[in-house]
Formats: sequence, structure tokens, C-alpha cells
Amino acid sequence: MASLTTKTGQTIDRQAMESMLRRRMFYTPAFEIYGGVAGLFDYGPPGCGLQANIIETWRKHFVLEEDMLEVDCSVLTPHEVFKTSGHVDKFADWMCKDPKNGEILRADHFVESILEARLKGDKEARGLKVEEKEEDPKKKKKKVKSEAVKLDDAVVKEYEEVLAQLDNYDGDQLGQLIKKFELKNPATGVEPSPPVPFNLMFQTAIGPSGQLAGYLRPETAQGQFLNFAKLLEFNMQNMPFASASIGKSYRNEISPRAGLLRVREFLMAEIEHFVDPEGGKKHPRFDEVANIELTLLDKHTQLSGQTTVRKMTIGDAVSGKVVDNETLGYFLARIHLFLEKIGADMSKVRFRQHMANEMAHYACDCWDAELLTSYGWIECVGCADRSAYDLTVHKEKTGAPLVVRQKLETPIVRHEWTIEINKKQFGPAFKKDGKAVEAAVEAATQEQREAFAKELQEKGSLTIDVPAVAAGKATIAKDLIKIEYSTITEHVREYTPNVIEPSFGIGRILYSVLEHNFWTRGTEGGDEARGVLSFPPALAPTKVLIVPLSSNKEFTPIARKLGQKLRALGISSRVDDSSATIGKRYSRNDELGTPFGITIDFQTVKDGSVTLRERDTTKQVRADEARILEAIREMVGGAKTWSDVSTELPIFEAQEVEMRS
Amino acid sequence: MASLTTKTGQTIDRQAMESMLRRRMFYTPAFEIYGGVAGLFDYGPPGCGLQANIIETWRKHFVLEEDMLEVDCSVLTPHEVFKTSGHVDKFADWMCKDPKNGEILRADHFVESILEARLKGDKEARGLKVEEKEEDPKKKKKKVKSEAVKLDDAVVKEYEEVLAQLDNYDGDQLGQLIKKFELKNPATGVEPSPPVPFNLMFQTAIGPSGQLAGYLRPETAQGQFLNFAKLLEFNMQNMPFASASIGKSYRNEISPRAGLLRVREFLMAEIEHFVDPEGGKKHPRFDEVANIELTLLDKHTQLSGQTTVRKMTIGDAVSGKVVDNETLGYFLARIHLFLEKIGADMSKVRFRQHMANEMAHYACDCWDAELLTSYGWIECVGCADRSAYDLTVHKEKTGAPLVVRQKLETPIVRHEWTIEINKKQFGPAFKKDGKAVEAAVEAATQEQREAFAKELQEKGSLTIDVPAVAAGKATIAKDLIKIEYSTITEHVREYTPNVIEPSFGIGRILYSVLEHNFWTRGTEGGDEARGVLSFPPALAPTKVLIVPLSSNKEFTPIARKLGQKLRALGISSRVDDSSATIGKRYSRNDELGTPFGITIDFQTVKDGSVTLRERDTTKQVRADEARILEAIREMVGGAKTWSDVSTELPIFEAQEVEMRS
Repeated sequence: MASLTTKTGQTIDRQAMESMLRRRMFYTPAFEIYGGVAGLFDYGPPGCGLQANIIETWRKHFVLEEDMLEVDCSVLTPHEVFKTSGHVDKFADWMCKDPKNGEILRADHFVESILEARLKGDKEARGLKVEEKEEDPKKKKKKVKSEAVKLDDAVVKEYEEVLAQLDNYDGDQLGQLIKKFELKNPATGVEPSPPVPFNLMFQTAIGPSGQLAGYLRPETAQGQFLNFAKLLEFNMQNMPFASASIGKSYRNEISPRAGLLRVREFLMAEIEHFVDPEGGKKHPRFDEVANIELTLLDKHTQLSGQTTVRKMTIGDAVSGKVVDNETLGYFLARIHLFLEKIGADMSKVRFRQHMANEMAHYACDCWDAELLTSYGWIECVGCADRSAYDLTVHKEKTGAPLVVRQKLETPIVRHEWTIEINKKQFGPAFKKDGKAVEAAVEAATQEQREAFAKELQEKGSLTIDVPAVAAGKATIAKDLIKIEYSTITEHVREYTPNVIEPSFGIGRILYSVLEHNFWTRGTEGGDEARGVLSFPPALAPTKVLIVPLSSNKEFTPIARKLGQKLRALGISSRVDDSSATIGKRYSRNDELGTPFGITIDFQTVKDGSVTLRERDTTKQVRADEARILEAIREMVGGAKTWSDVSTELPIFEAQEVEMRS
Repeated sequence: MASLTTKTGQTIDRQAMESMLRRRMFYTPAFEIYGGVAGLFDYGPPGCGLQANIIETWRKHFVLEEDMLEVDCSVLTPHEVFKTSGHVDKFADWMCKDPKNGEILRADHFVESILEARLKGDKEARGLKVEEKEEDPKKKKKKVKSEAVKLDDAVVKEYEEVLAQLDNYDGDQLGQLIKKFELKNPATGVEPSPPVPFNLMFQTAIGPSGQLAGYLRPETAQGQFLNFAKLLEFNMQNMPFASASIGKSYRNEISPRAGLLRVREFLMAEIEHFVDPEGGKKHPRFDEVANIELTLLDKHTQLSGQTTVRKMTIGDAVSGKVVDNETLGYFLARIHLFLEKIGADMSKVRFRQHMANEMAHYACDCWDAELLTSYGWIECVGCADRSAYDLTVHKEKTGAPLVVRQKLETPIVRHEWTIEINKKQFGPAFKKDGKAVEAAVEAATQEQREAFAKELQEKGSLTIDVPAVAAGKATIAKDLIKIEYSTITEHVREYTPNVIEPSFGIGRILYSVLEHNFWTRGTEGGDEARGVLSFPPALAPTKVLIVPLSSNKEFTPIARKLGQKLRALGISSRVDDSSATIGKRYSRNDELGTPFGITIDFQTVKDGSVTLRERDTTKQVRADEARILEAIREMVGGAKTWSDVSTELPIFEAQEVEMRS
């Protein structure tokens, strides 16, 4: 593929960008002064502000807009819950150990890296041009150096087939591949040990006895499922409804990498939308989104070895069965709108359907919103149909009524043979065998019951096999039992809802949005390139930089009051009264993504006018303070754009020279 | 003390309140369908909304108002960090085990409960009236049944002295008390094992090897300290400044109790204010708060066995040295204002100073904001002076420059004897002894150096004792060394800042605010008492309940549009179109603390007017929709109160009868 470019058409220099992000403290390796721990990061002030704004936008877009029931559940979770949900047994990756140096390898990535290196060596030996594959952060294979060794054509074919279905192999099969192809760790030249499962949950012990095993949750979902009955009650028994949760989850990755994209502690925002499985999973607001056009990559296309996307409206996708149902489709469209709102470059967004073998153990269908970054396509939002899996397993384990009891407008009427036992006389008649005899009667099928009724009527008693009692059978007198063909009217239908789960990795979204909004300027004149982060105003960590022209004491109270007025409008600002040039102060804030700057100068002292500078264009307007504040309020709120404001207010040019210094 | 009353003067019925809070899903035991885990709770929708509003208020009041640098740091923390901070060694409680039934007891609470029971039995035997002590949730002792046994006067005195200084004893001393007084577990009649320390941090292993031990942080503070150098850089080297963090922390309590007040997983909001230790820890904005009156209980009062509070302005408290310095005083006043803002009953708030022996290992002074609840006085905010403890230990361990380098406006000039060694010739002259000789010279005091200079000048060489070399001494030729009386000018002062740490337990604050705002009404007429939560509008989880008079279809689009208009104003609302009476629907929302209700009726369809009902008075006004929306916006924003609005808009009486049905 062509190299990735910024919104402004520049090739993305990831190293320059990441260096800027760390310098400006968007994020930083946690515990860095202690050498750091892989996969753990801290967010500094701008990263923290950006994260808070993404979360606030998410909460408004999903929770408030759709009256979702937000909950905040415990991260610490006892063993039994994840045993039931399947995470204890299935939430694992396969790992091998190098017996010589003790290195721990993720089995699938190890096989992949060695086979790819051999194929590359083969191409080199055949004199073919080797294309560098784009890096994939979801695989943490190390680059293995290839040697130019020609392989048999049949071997090449076999390797390629293995690589194509790598996600399909279990641990045994990966172990067999390692043996068969004699795959050795390049670092030591020895073959690693057979793959064993490594569970990705962090374990701990709860309480002073050390006997209650617990985990840090790897997803927020289970807390929502366990509270289903209470949430349904809170929602006054109305279906469908959604719960939502924002909180940290933890996965003990075997070897984290790619910065914020694969970490061990991360913020998630998850929605569990509970829907009646009958009636095609319709959504009442689907018509509001039906015309939104999405970029789709379905599983059939991928299985045929293609990655060609299709653009279509979600209405067409659902009616054409590309997307299974309206509820799933509704959320894909809402996710699309959310990503647009927070400033993702929509030309770098696609929805990819999971293939059968790559789905999580609880899912029956899944679409990922993937964002294109310099690390490749990154799964940022998963939208899975978990069917009734979780509610069913927890209900079966605990007996809790994780079901919906729906009052039927038209009762269901059916006819069947019913058995009524005369409990008062049954006990005394059969004594200790009573329970076993009763159970044997109740276990009878409809056909058997019909025969029983006949026998009772004809013989005045009923003799049945009861393997559990000594005699092996029992005879029940007519007055002990009543078997009738009854009419049963059901006024209530009981069902386990299905769950559609949009699940957002906030850290991955945050990183991708950073990359989608990064560009540089200023290289033309031979200057060092200066970074700019073109966040939408609502998303920017700080909205306004207040810059007094100089350290003149007259400016100080003006700057302070301006900050207070902005605060009263709910708009965050910072004062930079350092001695750096105005240009340098603005440059610093372009790197922080601050969209607006207000300069206070001697004219301000005289007439109360200030200049307003916009980050992306570096253009300025000048007006009295009240008008400038109003313009900022409108732009942050989304009512106006800079293009509106810069035509309404007089352009100001005077300080451009100094700004470019 | 007199029994605790609500704002409206009713005795607080905690059981009724907690039952209502669970029924309305403010919070619920986590994993309840699996039997629950002590000390773990989930917040349902209203609890989650309340928590979000407390956090938003906190962020505005502290972070935005004071330009604090917010960070979001890793919860998972490697062993070494907490080893250095002292938490591995000191963050523990003493626990005993009952050898018969395996019960685990917290040693101090065990000693306390048995001695108190004996003292109570003694009073009973003497025929004295026994006052029930108010329950203290910070102690999780079980109630021990007392028997009426008279004790010797000397024994009574000894028990009382032990109880008074219980926080002073370490594990050995507690063990000796158990032996000496023959304290036996009432459940089994046997003496528990000697106390051993139980560390309160949850432990886990990071990474696949299992070899990197880690903990879940018990406070958010360390992440802020470790990032100090980067934060100072981000703040462009300006001092003082504060960082802030909102996030979960974890403490493996031996036996959690008292609902939300002592839990194992909790949300904290912490500020670390970094200040120059010199100059009396002044605060630039202290004059803004100096006249605020606080309720103080200082350590001297407590040490004299009293709990009498004093009301004084923080200005007087600081100038009178009751509170040590302006920065500490400034934050106590800001905490007071915050608690007021979120609806705490200020007659139930006091600031209590820690006594020397009760302070955390890192603190040199500490004041707690305590809120009075039915569980007693609850520590909700700690405000500690951690001095330079944390930055110093991390700096010493890692060598990281966790210091401030302050440019001095007036350089410091001093005169001293300096030694300059001719490195080129020193090595060859002394060969392997070079280092030892050099070290011996450098170790000389100012007086010795002066003598050396004299000797060098007089003899042309210097002979000194060097115990580390074979000869025991060495002679240094004149050209190898220069000793002079020099003038040294320092332009930079390097210092380790002190830290003032206001630390907020959000769950405890949330529970206390619930209790401070709870009352009941409706008992007069023989009805069941109905709960009301009188939150300030800004804090209420939902601001407006929209109630269509009936299920008439004409009301549906009006209710929906009203919800959209409120959302556009940033005001949360819910529609209740259930078939319950209007009175019941409002009652339900009084229990949720929803301050305003809008009724849509047939008049609305005709002329667009709606009624607005206020939760606490149940009074209503009627006006056109736009005016009602504006009134709500002003009341939620704090610009107006209900008393303003109910005088401005026409009172509406018609539905009061139905409401009280």
C-alpha cells in the first residue's frame, strides 16, 4: 500500500509525532524512573484532558442520547464468575518457552515470524523484490532476519497455506508445526517447548485468608450481565434497553508493544443492549440512521482472500443481509457518527466483520470499527452479537432469573395432558418411596400420560416402572392421582434476551485520533518542522490559550479575568505569560492542539479589544472581548466554524510577522 | 450524644434509607447472584450519575479553578515502587487467627471489643446505666456480649488507659495485652494466635513469567510523585503547582463493613500540591479564603481527652498556629467550600487534626474533613502534609532529579577552602593508591584544608594520613594539588518540594451526602413514609422527570421533543410514561432525588404550557414551555432558586389532590 499521509497530504513521520506526544506529555511510560513496565502508561495533562473529552462525548452520544442505564461495577471479580463466563478456560493465548534462555514466546507469532522470514529468504534467493509488510501491532512477533535460501515450490505453497489459516490452530497444532518445520528461536538456535495456554487475566487473592481467588476483569461486560435483573426492574420491565459502563479493564499481554495500542491496563466504554431475540432484532430508531453510508469489509470478501471494501448505506446493508439485523446495523451507524464527531479521518475508517474462527468464545457475529494508522488497521471498537450466551450461563449457574417476563397481549392457549397428585395421601401411601414414584409419574411424556389416563379409567389404578424403588414398580390408586387433557392459557412469555455489545477501547481510539489529526508546518523556510494537532474544538484538551504580549503588569489582571469569564462559560483556558516570543508560545500550543489563542496587547488596555487566533490557519481576527468570547463559545459548542467567524469579524494581520519568527 | 436527625428534624432511620437506596439501585452488592464479596459494590444508574456529578463538581472546583495538572496513572504498580515508598513494609494492619475455627481477627479491634465488653459488664454489675457507644465504621470490631461481672477499680483504670492509647500499640504489644488480660475469642473460648502484620495491598504478577511482582495501588499519589520532573517541565518550571488524579485504588481490608464506608475497591480524587518548604508555605490565593469559618478539632484538644470543636476563620487558625501554614489552611477552606457545594449538611462537618501516633508513615501533619452520619464521624477527606518524604525516597532510590532548580535573583556568595587536584599527574604519582589518597584529601574539613594550604606553602608538600593504603600515609608534592580560599557564587538553588495532599474518598463522600439529604414525608396521614433525597439540582443524577398525564398518544411526541430540548441545554431528563398515577411517578423520582418534574396534559396540547413541580415543596407553577425550560436552566446552573422561580411564575394547584393520592 501507499505510505500513509496526514489530512494535509504529508507522509506521516511516526517517530517525530510520538516524540512530540511524549514531550508534550500526552502520555508517558509508567514508572519510567524505575525503568518502566511494558504495557503500562500514564496520561499527562493533555492526554488526560483528551481522554476526558472523548469520554464526555461518548457519554452524551450514547448514554444520554439513548437513555442508557450507566453502571459502575467492581474490577475485582471472584473466580467463579469468570469460570462460568468461560474466561478462566478460554481467555488465553498459547505460549512457548525457549529452554535455553528462558525467553517466552507467543506461539502463533513465533510460527508466523519464522515462516515469513523463510519465505522472504526464498524470494531473495529467487531474485524477487521483497516488499516490507506493514507492521501489525496485534501481532507482537519480532522481526526475524531472513537468509536468502531457496525453498522447494511445494514447501512455499505449504508455508503460505499455514500462514493463511494461522488463527485457526490450537496449541497442539502449533506445537506440531514447530516440530514439523523444525522452527528454532533465532536468538538461541533451539526449538521452544510445546505451547501451553497462558490465561490473560491478572490474578489476585481477596480477603485476609488468601483463599478467595479473584481476577481483574478483562472486560466491563460481566458486571452488567450480573445486574441484568435489577436493571430490568429499574427500567420498569421495559424492553429493549441498554446498560453502559466506562471503566478500566486488564489483560496480562504476553509481550505488549506498539505504544498505546496493546497495553495491560486500559479504559473501556461498553454498551450491552438487551433485545428480544424474536422478531428479527428490530430497532425503533433504525430509520434515523438508515441512510448513513458505511465502509464495510464483510467476512465472505475476506474468506475469498480479498480486502476490498464496499461503501453502502446501513439500510441497504441490513436489507441485503450483509449486516444481520437492524439493532447491529443501528449501532454500527451510531459508532460511525461517534468517530466522526471526535475527529477521526473517516477516509481511514472501515467496519470489518469477524470470520467464524476469529470470534471470541461468546460471540455469534462481530464487526470491528478499524482505524487506519501507521501501525496498520487498528481494531478500536468491537460490535458483537453475544446472543444469549452470558445471561444463560450465569442463570444456569446461579439460578438467578436473568430473563424477561413479557405480558402477552394475546395469551397463548395450548392443550396437554397434565398430572395432579394428591399430595396428602401420596406420602402416607408410598412412605419413603413417595418422592421416587412421584418423579417417575412426572417424567412421563405426553403419549405415556395419555396411556396412563386410559389405564386409570379402565383399571381404577395405574402401575408404572419405578427403577429407583426396591420393587422396581409401583401401583397408584385412582384417588391418589388425576390425569387430564387440559387447556393451558399462558399470559406471560419468558425469554432470555440477546445482547448486542458495542465495546470501545478508549486508548486505541485516542491514539488513532491523535495520528489522524497530526501534521507539521514550517519546513518550507528551512525551519524545523512544527507539529500541529487539529482536534475539533470540542475535543481539544484546552480550548483557549491566553497570551499577554509581554510581562507588562497591566496585562496580568486582564488575563486572569479573561480566564474566569471563559471558565464561567465552561471553556478551559491557560495563560502563558512566559518570556518566550508569541510565536513560540503559539507553536507550543499548536502541539497541544489548542484551537484558539487570545492575545492581550496595549490596544486591549486602551479599548478592551483582543485578537483571536485560530490554530490551523494561524489567521487572526480582532474585536472587543465580549464578541470574541461569544465567537469562541459558538465554535466550541459547534454552532459556528472558524470560517464563519473569520468572515464576520475583522481580520487582524499585524503580528503575523512576529508569529512566524 | 442525641440521636442523629435529618435536615427536617426527623430521626434518621438508616435501615429504611439503605433499603430505599438499594431498591432504587443507587448501589448494590457486587456479584450478589453469586453470593457477593464483602467490600465490593456496584453503582447502579442513579449512583453512577451522582458519582459522575460529584466528580464533575470536584474537577471544576479544584482542577479547572486552580489550573491543576490532571494525570491518569497506572493502577498496576511494580513491587519496587511500593518498597521504596514504604508501603510494602508499613501499609499493614495486625491480624490474629483463632486456632480453633480459623477466624481471622484484626488485633486492635479484638482487644478493644473484649475490654469494652468487660467494662460494660462491670458497669452493669455496679448497677450503672450503660450508654450505647456510637458505632464506628473505621473499627470493624464485632459487638461482644457483655456479662455483668464487677472488676477491681485498678483493673477498670488499666483497661481504660489501654483503650485510650490503642492506636499506639504495635503487634508485639497487642500480643502481650492478649496474654496479660487472657483475651479469648467469644466464638470459641480460645486465645487467638500472636498478631502478625497483614499487608493491605492486593498483589499480582505482571507479565507471562510470573516473576515481576506487582500491586494494585492503595492510593493514586505515587503515580503523581514519579512523574514530578515531567510535570514540572510541563508547567514550564513554575512553582508552586499541583497535580491531580481521579481513579480507583484498592485496599484488601481484613473485614470490610458499614456499606460504602469501608470497601476494598474505591474511587479517589487526590491533589498533590508541590510547594517550596522555605518561606512558610505561603499560598498566593490565601486572602480569598481567609474569612471562611471552619469547625476545627485540633490534636491538643483530643490529647486532653476532649472532642469540643472550635469555630474560627481559617485566617485566625493559621495566624494562631492552630493550622500550620497558609497552603494547608487554603486547602482546608477549599475543601469546606466543595463539601458545601455538593450538598453536605455543614452542621455535620468538622476538621479533625491527627494525633502524632495516628498519622500515616509519610505524613508530618494531617487534618481530616469528617462528616457525621449514622455510623458516626466519617473521615471523607484527608489533608496531609507529606513533607518531602515521597520525592526524597524515590529520588534516592532511582537517582531521578525530583527536585526544583530555582534561578536565584540574587546569587548566593560564599567563601570556602577548595581543593583542586592535578588529575593528569596524580594517577601516575600514586598508581593504585591514587583513588584512596584523593578521597582522603577531599574528605578534609574547612579547618584541615586551611592547615593543608599552610603546610603546602611552608614545606612544598603535604603529608596526610591515608588509612586505606599500605603505608598508612602519603606525601603529595606541591604541583599535584592546589588548595585555595575561593569565592563561590551560586545562581541556582536546588530543593525538594514539600507536598500538601488533599485526598478525597468519593464513595464515602457520596454515602454521607446521601444521608445528609435524606428525609421522609407522608407519614402524617397514615401512609407509608416516602423517601426524598434533596440533592442540590447540580448534583442530582437526573434533573427533570417528564410525565405525560396519561398514555394518550398526543403526549408522546411532546415528551420526546421536550427531552431533546433539555439535552441541548445539557440537562438530563427521563420520561415516565408508565400507567402509574402521577403521584406515584413523582414519589419514585423523589426517591431518586430528581429535583424537577414537568407534567404534559391536555392544556399542553392546546397552548403549549406545562407545569413544573419542585421535589422538596411539591409545589407547582405553570407557564409556557420556553419559560419553564429557562427556569430549569437557571436553577440547575445555580443562577436562581426555586423560591425565585415560584414567585416569578404562576402557581398551579389543580393536580395536588391527585399527587397526594
